[in-house]
This record gives sequence, structure tokens and C-alpha cells, in this order.
Amino acid sequence: MTFSADFGLLTPMWAGTAVAHASSDAAFAQAMLDVEAAWVSVLAGAGLTSGEDEEAVLAAANVEFYDLESLAVRGQDGANALIPLLGDLRVEIAKNYDGVSAVHKGATSQDIIDSALMLVAARSGAIILADLMRSSDALNVLAKAHRRQLCVARSLTQHALPMTFGLRVANWLSGIIEAGERLQRALESLPLQWGGAVGTLASLTDSLARDDDDAAASAQANVTVRDLVIELATNLGLRSSIPWHTNRLPITQLAAALGDVIAASGHIANDVLMLSRPEIGEVSEPQAAGKGGSSAMPQKQNPVLSVLMRSAALSAPQHVGQLYLSAGAADDERPDGAWHAEWASLRELLRLAGGSVDKLAQLAEGLTVNPHAMVRNAALSGDLLVSERVMSHLAPIIAGGKKRIQELVRQSLTERRPLGELLRESIPQERFSTHELQRILDPQNYLGQADAFIDSVSDRLTDWKES
Amino acid sequence: MTFSADFGLLTPMWAGTAVAHASSDAAFAQAMLDVEAAWVSVLAGAGLTSGEDEEAVLAAANVEFYDLESLAVRGQDGANALIPLLGDLRVEIAKNYDGVSAVHKGATSQDIIDSALMLVAARSGAIILADLMRSSDALNVLAKAHRRQLCVARSLTQHALPMTFGLRVANWLSGIIEAGERLQRALESLPLQWGGAVGTLASLTDSLARDDDDAAASAQANVTVRDLVIELATNLGLRSSIPWHTNRLPITQLAAALGDVIAASGHIANDVLMLSRPEIGEVSEPQAAGKGGSSAMPQKQNPVLSVLMRSAALSAPQHVGQLYLSAGAADDERPDGAWHAEWASLRELLRLAGGSVDKLAQLAEGLTVNPHAMVRNAALSGDLLVSERVMSHLAPIIAGGKKRIQELVRQSLTERRPLGELLRESIPQERFSTHELQRILDPQNYLGQADAFIDSVSDRLTDWKES
Amino acid sequence: MTFSADFGLLTPMWAGTAVAHASSDAAFAQAMLDVEAAWVSVLAGAGLTSGEDEEAVLAAANVEFYDLESLAVRGQDGANALIPLLGDLRVEIAKNYDGVSAVHKGATSQDIIDSALMLVAARSGAIILADLMRSSDALNVLAKAHRRQLCVARSLTQHALPMTFGLRVANWLSGIIEAGERLQRALESLPLQWGGAVGTLASLTDSLARDDDDAAASAQANVTVRDLVIELATNLGLRSSIPWHTNRLPITQLAAALGDVIAASGHIANDVLMLSRPEIGEVSEPQAAGKGGSSAMPQKQNPVLSVLMRSAALSAPQHVGQLYLSAGAADDERPDGAWHAEWASLRELLRLAGGSVDKLAQLAEGLTVNPHAMVRNAALSGDLLVSERVMSHLAPIIAGGKKRIQELVRQSLTERRPLGELLRESIPQERFSTHELQRILDPQNYLGQADAFIDSVSDRLTDWKES
Amino acid sequence: MTFSADFGLLTPMWAGTAVAHASSDAAFAQAMLDVEAAWVSVLAGAGLTSGEDEEAVLAAANVEFYDLESLAVRGQDGANALIPLLGDLRVEIAKNYDGVSAVHKGATSQDIIDSALMLVAARSGAIILADLMRSSDALNVLAKAHRRQLCVARSLTQHALPMTFGLRVANWLSGIIEAGERLQRALESLPLQWGGAVGTLASLTDSLARDDDDAAASAQANVTVRDLVIELATNLGLRSSIPWHTNRLPITQLAAALGDVIAASGHIANDVLMLSRPEIGEVSEPQAAGKGGSSAMPQKQNPVLSVLMRSAALSAPQHVGQLYLSAGAADDERPDGAWHAEWASLRELLRLAGGSVDKLAQLAEGLTVNPHAMVRNAALSGDLLVSERVMSHLAPIIAGGKKRIQELVRQSLTERRPLGELLRESIPQERFSTHELQRILDPQNYLGQADAFIDSVSDRLTDWKES
Repeated sequence: MTFSADFGLLTPMWAGTAVAHASSDAAFAQAMLDVEAAWVSVLAGAGLTSGEDEEAVLAAANVEFYDLESLAVRGQDGANALIPLLGDLRVEIAKNYDGVSAVHKGATSQDIIDSALMLVAARSGAIILADLMRSSDALNVLAKAHRRQLCVARSLTQHALPMTFGLRVANWLSGIIEAGERLQRALESLPLQWGGAVGTLASLTDSLARDDDDAAASAQANVTVRDLVIELATNLGLRSSIPWHTNRLPITQLAAALGDVIAASGHIANDVLMLSRPEIGEVSEPQAAGKGGSSAMPQKQNPVLSVLMRSAALSAPQHVGQLYLSAGAADDERPDGAWHAEWASLRELLRLAGGSVDKLAQLAEGLTVNPHAMVRNAALSGDLLVSERVMSHLAPIIAGGKKRIQELVRQSLTERRPLGELLRESIPQERFSTHELQRILDPQNYLGQADAFIDSVSDRLTDWKES
Repeated sequence: MTFSADFGLLTPMWAGTAVAHASSDAAFAQAMLDVEAAWVSVLAGAGLTSGEDEEAVLAAANVEFYDLESLAVRGQDGANALIPLLGDLRVEIAKNYDGVSAVHKGATSQDIIDSALMLVAARSGAIILADLMRSSDALNVLAKAHRRQLCVARSLTQHALPMTFGLRVANWLSGIIEAGERLQRALESLPLQWGGAVGTLASLTDSLARDDDDAAASAQANVTVRDLVIELATNLGLRSSIPWHTNRLPITQLAAALGDVIAASGHIANDVLMLSRPEIGEVSEPQAAGKGGSSAMPQKQNPVLSVLMRSAALSAPQHVGQLYLSAGAADDERPDGAWHAEWASLRELLRLAGGSVDKLAQLAEGLTVNPHAMVRNAALSGDLLVSERVMSHLAPIIAGGKKRIQELVRQSLTERRPLGELLRESIPQERFSTHELQRILDPQNYLGQADAFIDSVSDRLTDWKES
Repeated sequence: MTFSADFGLLTPMWAGTAVAHASSDAAFAQAMLDVEAAWVSVLAGAGLTSGEDEEAVLAAANVEFYDLESLAVRGQDGANALIPLLGDLRVEIAKNYDGVSAVHKGATSQDIIDSALMLVAARSGAIILADLMRSSDALNVLAKAHRRQLCVARSLTQHALPMTFGLRVANWLSGIIEAGERLQRALESLPLQWGGAVGTLASLTDSLARDDDDAAASAQANVTVRDLVIELATNLGLRSSIPWHTNRLPITQLAAALGDVIAASGHIANDVLMLSRPEIGEVSEPQAAGKGGSSAMPQKQNPVLSVLMRSAALSAPQHVGQLYLSAGAADDERPDGAWHAEWASLRELLRLAGGSVDKLAQLAEGLTVNPHAMVRNAALSGDLLVSERVMSHLAPIIAGGKKRIQELVRQSLTERRPLGELLRESIPQERFSTHELQRILDPQNYLGQADAFIDSVSDRLTDWKES
Repeated sequence: MTFSADFGLLTPMWAGTAVAHASSDAAFAQAMLDVEAAWVSVLAGAGLTSGEDEEAVLAAANVEFYDLESLAVRGQDGANALIPLLGDLRVEIAKNYDGVSAVHKGATSQDIIDSALMLVAARSGAIILADLMRSSDALNVLAKAHRRQLCVARSLTQHALPMTFGLRVANWLSGIIEAGERLQRALESLPLQWGGAVGTLASLTDSLARDDDDAAASAQANVTVRDLVIELATNLGLRSSIPWHTNRLPITQLAAALGDVIAASGHIANDVLMLSRPEIGEVSEPQAAGKGGSSAMPQKQNPVLSVLMRSAALSAPQHVGQLYLSAGAADDERPDGAWHAEWASLRELLRLAGGSVDKLAQLAEGLTVNPHAMVRNAALSGDLLVSERVMSHLAPIIAGGKKRIQELVRQSLTERRPLGELLRESIPQERFSTHELQRILDPQNYLGQADAFIDSVSDRLTDWKES
């Protein structure tokens, strides 16, 4: 048991999820080792170091050999954890290898840390994308299944007009697809960081030039710095780029996309929390053994998935803001604090997104829908739910016009009598038949483009999945 | 003089700029009127209202007829300013027109406000983009002009290695291009909001269906809701979309892009502020009459452009965060507060971006570069600036290896003697000639890919401008 | 009509309120003039300038003489609005006075701007405090009036236990009192800023020393710099302090207190929004002519007061964060951007607090309470509302203990039968009488310290009002 | 090695510090156990449970018995970690005790979690306060030691007037004292949370009432709920309070005070970073073995303490904002996500403050001051540093007045000739002697209240320490 470590006791939003593992300190340390190892492999492939060297580095590039707690403590000294890790890596290599290792050749700590964070983002992002796809499929099924299910649409908390539950779900889905597309785009452009101490690749350039001079190195004469960097990026699955030590827009793009994922999930959670209140009861979260229960109050089933998703949506904006702040506070050729302030927020955003979509997938696949409650709630407003339509159809017909209808609406509210009844009393049959009146009062006839919009969102999902 | 109005006394970052005007309350009110008017025109074009009606609405859709202060005060009652504006618009129309106006037909206040904000964004965004282009051209010229100008690269505030001033400027430019591309993409996808009270377009759909029933309306039989919405979007220069009343990712995309513009500008400002300190003096801001002067201390020339850009970069992240928060707090079919919290932040981001690039353009076009100071500052570190290279070239040669070189570096620092001298004393001529030593100590020979990176950024600018 | 001015169209949270006026650009400009004038008066009082000079400055220190829009535009040049205002003030003075004015003697622009903002805070804060007091009185009445009114307490959106509406209101009140006390403390310690160009008061000190040398000035021989600063602070109603140009904790204290006011109000708004949903209906906002209505949907009454308060609570944290950021980014003897980033956020916090409490007072004084709905909603859970108590009393008695009761609870939920009935069938009368069973099932008997807590909050209010 | 745990690799700002330990997941879990155990002790003390029960609970209330990783993973199910911990605690108790334990009697998970976080805050806060005191003493010594040391004061990055290094340090100290006082006040008012499921203490009240009925319990007849809660608070070192489940102002007060500590430290860091740039060189950080070194560039000594403090100051505002957001988003009797979003930010603020003051103490006690550089930098501006004074003394004397002096200043800048020389040429000796001229040009004579302000801050420190 390590008593100085954190396991996520204070962050149930993501504790225990796949992304939590993919972004742990161990995962980050492994990613730093992966970058160091990949670079030695690139050098070896180009004949710039030996196969033995490569082998020795690869053998040592395993996080299990390192003491993460000690690395964290020693990280204070140089303001980052790569410095002590690199020292320990060299010690580890030296245990079984007495050559001179090319490890970290020409690199700077920011190269390794930034690239490792991009690897962590890529690995975590793949999990998030998969959960987004899974959630999208489930929401799509849900939207279509309930495309005829009438429910009440609410604006500023109050009943407004009828809509369908299918459309509400399609609106949820629409946000998820948009966020998924943006995340995908961001993941596809995660850049390698490779610039050396100040972003000139001076050391690497210099060493290639020296090898050029060297007769024995003639074989590699035509290896350029650019080739090596592209090969490293390719091997790590990252995009090749000029150094971005102080140009942090790759980070903000990722942050923005993760923020979108969390916001789109939070929007759904807010609706589920409201709809699953006992007085409303239109949906309820999937029940799973041990989930959401209260031992003291056994009747209580808490909507914990949504609580956690909403909590993530309340937390993420601060971290998005942090990364914009760091980007705008960059200075010199390596920032004196703004860079360091990025790390925790970037990881937290990955985790909040990972936790959100983990919960979302469970929610989307297991949501219990209660059509009865939707009908009951709509009935609370009754005819008044289509007062907009009544106004438009009957104001030109009724004596007194708009004002008269507003009076009838007020009367309906005060006397608790159906608006239809009051209208019937106020408009002669010959001007407007009871049949016609019933038709315009039927909320099922006042759903506008609900169906078309569901189809439109569904088509967009198809496009995304095929892209 | 209106004593309850604000003019920007507390926001010199953007007061008096073109974007400040394009996003003023008057500009926003005009944009709301523009949306209302455009919709009546679309209806008239489809034969759904009369040409007289259109004319009457167009005539009244001029912000000069309305009392903005009164609108603001009355905006409290319904929690938005469109409600009183619409009332006043109807009164204005009625002054000269006694027909029944189709103004606002089937629309909801959120349709008008969201679409108007998109119009304000489009208009302000065009100004910002133009200033970004102008700044990019100037930075590009600057980067190329100084591509051979040696200066010191700093990391964590300390001298690290040599670089060129041209590369520093190219790094600045790189961020500006990236931000510009993202803003352009965001502006190109600004969506129309058109959904009616709850995003179903029920009222509009209903009214088209009724016209269908109507024999006299047979001419319009084939006009669909979708056609009308697309036409409205086209006329307003916005993208057609399903309603996004509670799906706020169009807002976050814009916010993210504006945040990028401000951050990329802030990064430049931070460097200029540091480089123009009297002790460093490598650049200075363009001097303009009355700008940055101090009457009490006449010798003082304040870098006010950069101060304002930096101030914007410190302010923007909070507003970006706000828009992510509102997106994640959306609920129901119209949010009960989260939506209202977007408006001020969205406008402030437009203005901070507008102010930043207005200042940036002045800075980029007028920056005074002081090569002499760059050389002087680099000389402070002298040979030590290439200690990385010395280590790499000479550790294998010198007796005592790396440790010995570290000792010599320390000696150089303590005794204030050039490292080259100490090295010369410690390495026999036959192992390393003085000529060779001078070559590796020359910072001009240790610039790595500086030139290639400048070209790469410059090429990217060309691509952007041609896109 | 000034087309570049803002009137609050995008901020209905505070547009039209008293604090909006007390913090307008005009109010800020007047506060700057007040500081300049008060200083000249202090100097005149000490015989350091003439009575004519004082008169001339006082006559010119009226915001009506100045063009705010022009000041804002020219504010860009020196990065603040005091510089052009001071120029215009001198021109204005010179119109009627041909002496040499002591205006701004020994002061720096930061002295005037910071002190003026403190004046604006004091003036706005007094309004906010008054509305907090008014709200507190109304909430106190409400809490006591409903101290016996049973309602359901909800945790994580679900029904938990019974409570009283009086206690809920007392909890609201508790936050308001706490926030009020903090705001009062913050307002009582608003400091004067007076330090001269770099916080040494060198110029002022120097000029007093010179006067000392002067024979004619012997009368003032014993006037010290400290005396003058204390007198200025006293006259402006501010606290005397050493200069705090780069020590921004006076600002964070004010920001924190305003944030507290807005958060405590937002908490109430959230509850009112939830409780006034049609399906819940336990409270509704006061109806006022034209407030919250919807012309298209006449049955709809929007809870606009709470919407605006909630919107403020979603907006304020970013501004609080901004002021902490600026405090932590302070540098040198005047910060190069961090200071400038404070102004808009500080004012916005004053306004959001002013708007929140303006709405809160209306809400607290006019809230409609619907006891019937509270009883109806509690009845939805029925006996299950006291399942915690059942568990505690009956688990030791019933065969099967805790598990059996959990089963009965589940059975009650599934079969929709009252838990009491099931318990009656499962426990022999001799073990637990029906009378006793009814007693423990009665939610009115399970309210714990509700009453005591209401009294405790009420007492605290008395203490605050008497303090 | 636990691969899902975090050790602080991404947060060198606080990794390895005492507060990191005092706020680890283990420390938080221990604090939860401490609260549960303290409550059983209170109950036992009042005769409400047995001594055996107390003993059994105390024996099990040791974090070493629990699997933190498993707790974190299971924490998802109920959205907090107390639920699984309580289950495990009961299992642990049952291992050696077969009575019925009173553990958690009448409490709710929020009672335990909130109170445990207050304990963690109290324990971490004590460490932070001690480091603040230590830092204050060191800064006080530094301020006094350098009270005569002339240096240049800078505003908006540019040289403004002379000041003393002692005054700069006193300004730093002033912020630290203010922050320390606020933190102390916040720590002294950390409240116990004790309210039961919905803040009524219904279960506890009920159980005491039952004991009253019980003849055997007559001894405890006069124990009130209030007594028990006060005793629990006292034993835990917390303040007794009515429940604050949804009234989160105790959290914002703590957050604000921690934010102040971090901001006041960040302000110092910014100055040290600037002053230790090679071109300025007025101070340098204490050198410690392995600290701030760069293996690739051995000449480089990075100011890592300040980098980390600055990084903390850039990170904290987001977390302060988070806690204000959660306070304003509270709803119902337990918030559905806002509460959960508090935990990570509250801990991070404790840690950032803990890390900041840990670094600050090192910095304050070991800062190297370079008076030579201060003099050299002041000399860069030369006579111009007192141009304000020249203007005031000589404008009335010189022909041409203010304008003439401004011209001479410009001439001095352009021709790089001392202003004194130019003045001498422009003013006849008889009007102003060379002796007098030298006197007014001497920056040491233009330090205003520098000394008095140092004393004032120093006195305030004495007051604080004696309070």
C-alpha cells in the first residue's frame, strides 16, 4: 500500500475506468519510456546507433522497473518527472549494457513529456471514441424506438409545446456526434514534439553533420533530420510537426474537443436527472446491482450515472480554461510555469471525458423509458400545450381575437377547465366544427419537423460511422 | 450623454476598435432586426405574406428607431431583449402599415437571439480574420528579414542555446496561422438557429399545411419548411442546421477558435514585453504620437500594445470556460439560465480577439528590432551558449569526459573566463585544433533547422492565403 | 443615440438595476473625478494649494462635462482611461482658472483608478447590502410562517426523508446571512490606493520636504505625508493602507464576498426553478405585469427572476477566478496586463451581485407557496419516506431483520402497496401495536432538529442586524 | 507497484511535500475513519453505545486495513468512496467483534465526507500556516537587510523611479501576511458537517427520544442532540454548525483563503523569475544539489522554485472558480453533481498552496541578492530615473518649462548623454546650483516613504505573530 498515492477516491467520475488506467502516472511514465525507446529505434534503423544499444534501451523501457513515487518526489528538483526518469533509465540500461547509449540523443525533456502526453491522449482518446460510438448507436436506437412517443417540451422549466421523446433523444445524439467528430479530428492531428533544447534540433542536426564527415557513416549520408523526425512520428502514431514548445494550439484543440464530449454528455445527464425525479418519472437509469442504492433509505435509487456525468460537466470548463490560459501565457523558448500548469488539466480532461462516456454508454444502453409518465405529464397542461396553435388558428375566428383567447387561457388555468371546452362555448359550431377543434387540440398533430429531424440526425450518424 | 451606458472605459483592450462597433448593443439589436426582416422576406418570396408586409417590416427594421436603453431595462421582464424589441418593432410597423404583419411568424425569441449573435460573430469575425492576415504578412516579412539574426534562446527564463530572431518570429507566426485557420473554419460553419418554441418548427409546419389546404395557396403547394429555412440561412450568410437550442457546440467551436486567436496573440505579447525590458532591449514597440507615453515620467515609453494583448490573453480563458460551462449545463428544450450566461462571454471573446489582432497588426507592422542588443545579450553567456555542443563534441576527447567539462563550465562561471580558453588549456592541440574549437564554439554554426522551420511556416502561410 | 455604447441588452441579469447605474462608465468616471477632487481638497485643507485651485477643480469634477466615448477610444493609447480624462480635466479647469492646478499632484493613474473602483464598489456594495437585508427579512418571515409545513427532502434528485419548507427556507437564509456578513466585512475594509508612480509616494514626500524648507510654509511644517493620506481615505470613506499596486488581495477579498452573495442567491434560484416545475409545483414566482409571460404561449409563466439569478451564479465564478488570476500574475511595481484584466471582471461581479439580490428581494417578498403540492409530492413516496426510521425501529423486531425490511420496501415499490400495510402483515400486533406503527410512519414525527435549526438561523439574522 | 495510482508525476508543484501526504487518498480515507470513530466515541461517552463497541470501531479505524484502489473503483456505484469504505469498515469490525456496532449511527455519507475534508484541510492548513510564518520571518529579515539597497522600480516592464529592494520585499511580505491572516481565520472556522440524510438529524433525534422512553437510559436523559454534535466537533477540532449540505460558503471561504496564499506566492515568483533573468540578474534562487540543473546545458541554473510557484498561481484560479461554481449550483437537500465536483478542486487548492509555501520558504530563506546588478540596472536609466522629480523641481525654473524638460529628456535618450549634463547647460548656476542639481538627481534622495512602509509591514508581522 502506498500511502502517498491517489487512486481516485475523490473523483468517482472516472475512478476505475479504462481511461483512468490509460492515463495513470504509470501509463504516462511508460509513454515517456516509449518515446525514448522509439527514438533509439529510429536512430538504430538509420544506422546512427547500434542494434545492441537499441536492444538494451528497449529492454529497460518498461515502467515496471521504476519507482514512480520516487520519481514524483525528485521531479520537484527540475520541475518535471522526465529528468529523474531519464537518470534512472540510464542506470537501468547500464545494468546489462556497457556501451554508450544513444538514449535521449538530441532531445529535451519537453520533447519527451509533450510527446508522451500526446501518446497518452491517443490511447485514452481511442477508448473515448469507442464509447462515443457505442453510445451513439444506443441513442440512435432509442430515438427511433420513441419517435412517436409524445411528451412535453419544456422551456425555462415550464411546459411549452408537445414534442416526441424520440426527438429529445435525437437532440442528445446530435451533440454526441458533433463532439465525436471533433474529437476524432483532434486525435488524428496529435503532433509529435521534437525540437531539442530550444526547438532548433541543433544537437541532432549537428550530430548528423558530423556523421556525414565521417567516412564510415557514408551509408547514412542521405539521412536527413527531417526523415528521422517523420519516422519517429510515424512509429509513435503521431503527426510530424515543427516544434511547438511555446505554440500550444495543439493542446487547446484537444482540450476543446474533450470539453465538447463532456458538455454533450452533461447535457444528457441534466435531462435524465430532471426526467427521473419522482414527480416527473419519465425515465429512470438502468438498475445494476449495488448501483445508486442507499442502505439507510432502501427505497431510494440514485441516478448515479447522470450525477457523475453532470459533475464532470461542471468540472471540465475550468480545465479547458486552464489550457487556454497556459497557451496565452507561453513565453520565451520554454515557458516558466505556464507549460507545467497544463499537465494536470490535460489529463483531468481526458479522464473526465473517459468517465463521462463510460457512464453515457451504460445510460444509453440501459435507460428505462416510461411512456405512461410522459402522457401523464403532458396531460397536466392538457389543451394548453397547444395554446400557440389555438392562438394561430382561432384568433382570426373568435370574437375578440387574440385578447379573447388569452382570457380563455387564463380562465382555463384559474377554473381548471379544459381550454377546448371554453373554446367550444365561445365559438359557434358553424364557424369551427367540434371535429376540427379536436384536430387542432390534439398534440400529436402539432409535432412539426420532429420526425424529419430525427432522420437527419440518424443520417449524420451513418455518415460519421462510414467516414 | 447616456449615463447608464458603457463605452469601454474599463476595457482598453478593445475600446474604439472596429469589432467593438460591430458587436455593440446597437449592432446586436440591428442583427436581431435583420433576422426578423430576412424571415419576412423569405415568407414574401414564397408567397406566404404580401410584398406590402415585407416592405413595412423592412422599413421598420432599423436600429435607429429604437431606444436601446429602454430595451435593456425591459429585457429583465422576460430575461431577454428580443421580447421588448419585438413589441417595439410591431408598434413601429403599425405606424405606417395597417395589415397583419407576418413578423416573427413561427419563430421563438431564441431563434432570433442565437441567429443574431451568429450574424454579429460573422461580421466581427471578418474583421478579425482580415487583421490576422495583415499581421501574418507582416510577421512573415519580419521572420525572413531576420532569418540570419542570431539571438539567445531562453528556457525557464535562462539562456539556453543560440537561435535566430527570424525563427522566434516564425514561431509566433505559426500560432497565428493555426488560429486563423481555425477561426476561418468556425466562421464558415456558423449556423442559423430556426426551430420555433421548442425546436420542432411546429407552428411553421402547421401554417404551411394550412396553406396547402387552402385552394388559393396552391401556388405555394410545393414550398417545404426545409426550403424556407435553407433560404433564410442563405440570405443571412449562415449555415442551415437542425435547431440547436440546447445543443451548444456551435458556440463552443466559435469560442475555442477565438480563444486560439487571443492565446496566439498573447504569446507574442509576452515575448515582446520581455524583450523590450530596458535591460534586454532586443525589440521595442512602434512609437506613435501619444501612445505609451507618461507625462510624469517623460523618458518612459510603455509597450501598451503588448500590455493590452497580454491583458486580453489573461481574460479570455474565463470566457472560453464560461461557454463550455453553459454548453454542459443545457437542459430541457430551452435552458433556464445557462443560455443567458453565454451572451456576454461570447461577445467579450469577439471583442478581446478583435482588440488583440488590432493591436497585433500594429505591432507586427511596426516592431523595432535591435540586433545589437541581441548580440550583446548572447555575449553575456558567451561560449557557454553552446555548452551542449561542447559536451557532445569534446566529452569523448577530453580527459575526464563529461565530468571534466562540467567542471570547466563551473570554472568559467566562477572565474568569468571564456569556456573556450579553459578548453584550450585542457585539450591538446593535436587532439582538437584551435580552428576546430572555434568552429564548434561559434553559435552561428549551431542553429539546426532554424532556417528550414522558417520556410515551413512561410509555406504554410502561402497555403492558407491560397485556400 | 450612441451606437458604440452598451446598455445591457446581453445582460438582463443586471440591466436596469440600481447597481448597473452605480457602476456605469459614467459612475466610474465620476468616481475618478471624485478622487482627484478629494485630493485637491486635502491639499488645500493642509495649505498646500489654494482655495481657488480647489474651487476650480471641484467645479470641473463633474462627469457631465466629459465625452465618455472619446475617453474610451483614447484609453487605448496609455492602456487606461484616466490618462485622457486627466488631460480633459485640466482643459476643463483651465477654461475658468488660470492658476497652476495641484490636480493629480504626486499621484499615478493606478492610484486614481484603483481608488475610483473602490468608490464604485462602496457605492454599489451599499445597494447590495440593503437588498440582502431586505431579502433576509422576507426569508425569515417565510421560514417561520412555514416551519410546520411538511415537504419532501430530496437528495441526488430523489425523495429522501420528510422535512419542512420552513427549514428549506432557513437554509437559504443561512447562506444569505453568511454572504451578507462577508460582504459587509469586505466593504468595511475597502482601501484607498495612494502610492505615486511606484508606491513610494516619492513625489509627494519630496514636495512636502520642499515646503518645509520654505519659510512661508512653516504653518504646514507638521503636516506629514501620512496625515494627508489618512485624511484622503477618510474623506472618501475608504480605509488607509500602504500602497497595494501589486498586492491585489484587497481585490480578491471583495471578489470572494461578491461571489458568495451570487452563489447563495443562485442556490435559492436553483431550488425555486425545480420547485416551480409544473409537475412539482410547490412554489411559484411572484407574478407581475409583463413579467415572465409569453405572447405565443399565453398559459406559460416563466420563472424569470430565478432564471436570471441562476444565470448570474453560472457566470460569476469565472470572474472570481479572473481576479485571483490577476492577483497571482502581478509583477514589477505595476503589472503589465494583469492589472488591466481586473477591471471588467470586478465591475461585472458587482453587477451580477446587484442583479441577483435585486431579483432575490422580489422573489423572497413575493414567493407563492403551495402547501397542497408539498403534501401531494410527499404522498408520492408515502410511508417509504420514513424507511430510514422503519429500518431503525423495526429491524430489531421483525423476523429476518434488515433484509426483510429491504424486501418489504421492494415489494411496496413493485406492488404499489403501502409499506405500513406490508409491515402490519409481517409483525405481530403484540410485538408492535398499530398505534405505534402509525406513529413511526407519520413523517411529521420525523423532523429532527428542523425547528431548532430555523430558530438558530433566525437568531443569527438578529445578531447580524444588530451588529 | 500500483499501476493505476498517481504519485504526482504531473504535478511537481506539490509532489513530495508534507501537504501532499496530508491530503493523499490514504489521508482522506483515514480522516473519514477518524470521523466515524470519533462519533462512536461520543456516543459511548454519552452512554449511547458500549465501550466494547467503541473499542472495536477504534481498532478498525485504521486506513492500513483497507484497499484504497478497490474503494476508488467501487466508489463509482454510489458516486462516493464513503459507501464502500463504510461497508469494509463494518466487515473489519465484525472480524473481532460480534456486537451491533453504532458506527455511522444517524449519519449520512455527506456528513462523513465533508467533515473528513475539513479534517484534511485543518491538517494541511496547519502545515501551510507554519510555512507561511517561516517565509514571513525570512522575508522580514530580507526586507530590513536591504532597506537601503537602491534598485529600479518598474511599471509596465519599464524603468520608472528608484525604490529599495527592501521595499520590494516588504511588498511581497505584505501579501503573505494578509494571506496568512485570512487562512488562519478560515482554518479557525472550519465547520463539522453533521445533519443526517437531509440535514434534520432526524434519525439521531429519534434515537435519543427513544432512549428517553427507555427506563434504563434515564442516566442519559439530559443528553441532547446539540450536546453530542458540539462534543463531536470539539473532539475533531472543528467548529459546531448547523448542517451545510447545500450551503457551501464554508468551502468558498477556505478556497478564497488558499487562493490568496497561492496568489501572494505567485506574485513573488513572478518578480524572482524576472529579476533572475541573466540580463537583469538582481537576484538568484538558492542553489541546492541537483536542483534546477540541466545535464545537457551544464551552465544553466533554472529558477525551479519560482517556476513551480508561478505554475501554481496559474492553476489555482480555476479551482477557486470551481468551488464558487459548485456553491452556486447547489440544489435540493444534496446536490446532484455540484457537490461531487468540489472534492478534487478543494484538495488541489490545498496542495497547490502547500507546494507554493514549501517552495516559498526555501526561496525566502535562501535568495541570493546581487546589489551590484541592482546598481548596474538603475544606471541604465541614469538621471532619467528621477525625471519625475526633475520635472517638478525644474520646470518652474527652466526657460520653456515642462516642454523644455521633455525635449531635454528626449535629447538625453537619443544622444545618450546624461540628463544632468543637459540640464546644467540649460539652467544658469545662479538659478540652480550644481550642488542642488546633484542632490535632486541622486536617486537615494527620492525614495519617499520606502522606509516607513517597510516598518509598517514589519509591525504588521509582529502583530500577526502575537495574535
